[in-house]
Amino acid sequence: MSIGNGPLSGITVVDLSRILAGPYCTMLMAELGARVIKVEPPDKGDDARHYGPFVGGSSTYFMSVNRGKESIALDLKDPTDRATFEKLLGIADVVVENFRPGTMEKLGYGWDFLHERYPRLIYAAASGFGHTGPYASYPAYDMVVQGLGGIMSVTGYPGMKPARVGMSIGDIGAGLYTSIAVNAALYHRLNTGEATKVDIGMLDCQVALLENAVMRFFATGEVPGPMGARHPTITPFAAFQTADGSLIIAAGNDGLFVKLASALDLPGLATDPRYLTNDLRMRNEAELTKDMEAVLLTHDRAYWIAKLEAAGIPCGPINTISDAVDHPQVAARNMLVTINDPVAGVVTVAGNPLKISGFDDPTTRQPAPALDADRARILKELGLE
Amino acid sequence: MSIGNGPLSGITVVDLSRILAGPYCTMLMAELGARVIKVEPPDKGDDARHYGPFVGGSSTYFMSVNRGKESIALDLKDPTDRATFEKLLGIADVVVENFRPGTMEKLGYGWDFLHERYPRLIYAAASGFGHTGPYASYPAYDMVVQGLGGIMSVTGYPGMKPARVGMSIGDIGAGLYTSIAVNAALYHRLNTGEATKVDIGMLDCQVALLENAVMRFFATGEVPGPMGARHPTITPFAAFQTADGSLIIAAGNDGLFVKLASALDLPGLATDPRYLTNDLRMRNEAELTKDMEAVLLTHDRAYWIAKLEAAGIPCGPINTISDAVDHPQVAARNMLVTINDPVAGVVTVAGNPLKISGFDDPTTRQPAPALDADRARILKELGLE
Repeated sequence: MSIGNGPLSGITVVDLSRILAGPYCTMLMAELGARVIKVEPPDKGDDARHYGPFVGGSSTYFMSVNRGKESIALDLKDPTDRATFEKLLGIADVVVENFRPGTMEKLGYGWDFLHERYPRLIYAAASGFGHTGPYASYPAYDMVVQGLGGIMSVTGYPGMKPARVGMSIGDIGAGLYTSIAVNAALYHRLNTGEATKVDIGMLDCQVALLENAVMRFFATGEVPGPMGARHPTITPFAAFQTADGSLIIAAGNDGLFVKLASALDLPGLATDPRYLTNDLRMRNEAELTKDMEAVLLTHDRAYWIAKLEAAGIPCGPINTISDAVDHPQVAARNMLVTINDPVAGVVTVAGNPLKISGFDDPTTRQPAPALDADRARILKELGLE
Repeated sequence: MSIGNGPLSGITVVDLSRILAGPYCTMLMAELGARVIKVEPPDKGDDARHYGPFVGGSSTYFMSVNRGKESIALDLKDPTDRATFEKLLGIADVVVENFRPGTMEKLGYGWDFLHERYPRLIYAAASGFGHTGPYASYPAYDMVVQGLGGIMSVTGYPGMKPARVGMSIGDIGAGLYTSIAVNAALYHRLNTGEATKVDIGMLDCQVALLENAVMRFFATGEVPGPMGARHPTITPFAAFQTADGSLIIAAGNDGLFVKLASALDLPGLATDPRYLTNDLRMRNEAELTKDMEAVLLTHDRAYWIAKLEAAGIPCGPINTISDAVDHPQVAARNMLVTINDPVAGVVTVAGNPLKISGFDDPTTRQPAPALDADRARILKELGLE
């Protein structure tokens, strides 16, 4: 049921996680070749099964992040199902959950118990605030953490209401850090035999993602605000107006700035004492923007993209999702894959960015499982049927 | 020089990377216990050494993502320095770079050469578009990829100019996926003896981060747009007005919605046929917001946070960076650490969100290295002095 071969081939993940942060982590593990067995509550299953949009009654939200996994429905308060779950842990390398802290302990499956009973089992928890500290028991969802962590306060335009980042950076951020930590824990276990507990907090991850804003705040005492469509500390690194639309230009060092001046037919910019270093360009950003746009407005965006690309200057349009998935590089990198779902039919989802030599990166993925779809086979495998 | 013990203790990373995507990956590796040796061009070093803000003339941008690493300046076109570099590769487990594709080949250090000469060396490249496909050779910086990948088109408010995500999700996203892949490659090497090449493209990572928007686009044919401060497919999951400011409420399932109705003293909401499921709440989102805000506006935010938190409903304010770093959980989780920099003095930076049992998570970090600071010791270690 896994993607095929991969660096984590042979690894079995028992996945209690729901919605996004945990499932995103275990999806990446499946993409790396691990076998992922979702353990879901009977009847309703993972909450995300009920998030739209639906195709043929099936949640595409769920399909996108649960492709290629297996499913068994177990009531972790029922003695028979608990026995099955414990057998399952016996064949697992990793258990992943994103419950509120304390839930596993209430179920009798806290780390102390797990580590004693299954000494080779790695336990990964992704929670809102982590398993320690005064807020450990508080619930959190993506947007709560986007609000608390400060990312909304630096996203958008000055003077406007803060905007949510247009994807679930609270959840997916935590999923990514969990995946990094679990892979490191797998390495450590193979190296030393020791299994560890991974404790990822979504709020911690926001602070980590915002390292640059946090550093700026402590270095300068100024509270970072939203900057619209430009970089806070690099210039020119922003969206500029052309004759027919916005163009992003990112000249991240002095060499690129010199090339840019030449491509804009403004050689004087490169030697202008106001613009000689990034620090000077930051201080004189308004004037530089004016000088650049005076020329940029004389031609359309396509003209400038061709000209700047030829000069080796990083630049590009602001794409919609429709434009983005149409970019020739997206197809060339196999970043859209299809799932032939038995209910919804053929569904297109984002591919795997973890390109590692020697492993398959097929153009299709196995469907996400129906709730409890793999029960019979798993019970048989565990010797319970 | 590393953080201390960690799951990657004993691993040596030779780090050719600059600015952010690569350095963020290798910073995480250092946090996991690896030794990271930056190989920088003589004279100027990593471009990020020249990005502000500066404290005592030192770049805090650079310090934040290069703490605890070592530095040696080598000119990879100079025969003597190349010999040193090749000796260094001989003691490395991983080489990380984020040059434009083709640069390593021009230097004579492409994967084919490296893999033959150093069969146990893992090679990780993080580039704008990846090492394959028609755009492989194009340059990219964070903001170019934020524009191309579509994330700006879904961030902000309807009718307004697209906003950049307020942190470098293009670079840091790629750094996170690179870290996941490198850790998986280290596991695979320990398991099988085989070293692999990791090829991460920043644009690929944007598509992967946007999996939900990509899925929605293909499932519905509608081009996702910016949604301000609410979730695209879950309701209620947004910022709401109270008597004195915005409050984020995230009731991600039916059970939480019933609890929310009760906490708002609006029990009728829970049984209202317009609001019985998430799908219905999505369709009737404007009415639901009106019903909720009619009550929310009668008290201030602090009142509602206390009341909703007591009822177990995920909620919170929209914090500035200053508020965020002041959150008691941030200190409790050691998410701010200090560096005692020999030039800049004590600098506070974001801590390590990868909490793994049994390993140190000290409250301080070693400084980022001055350019070429570790030359003498490294040359001696390589038998070259």
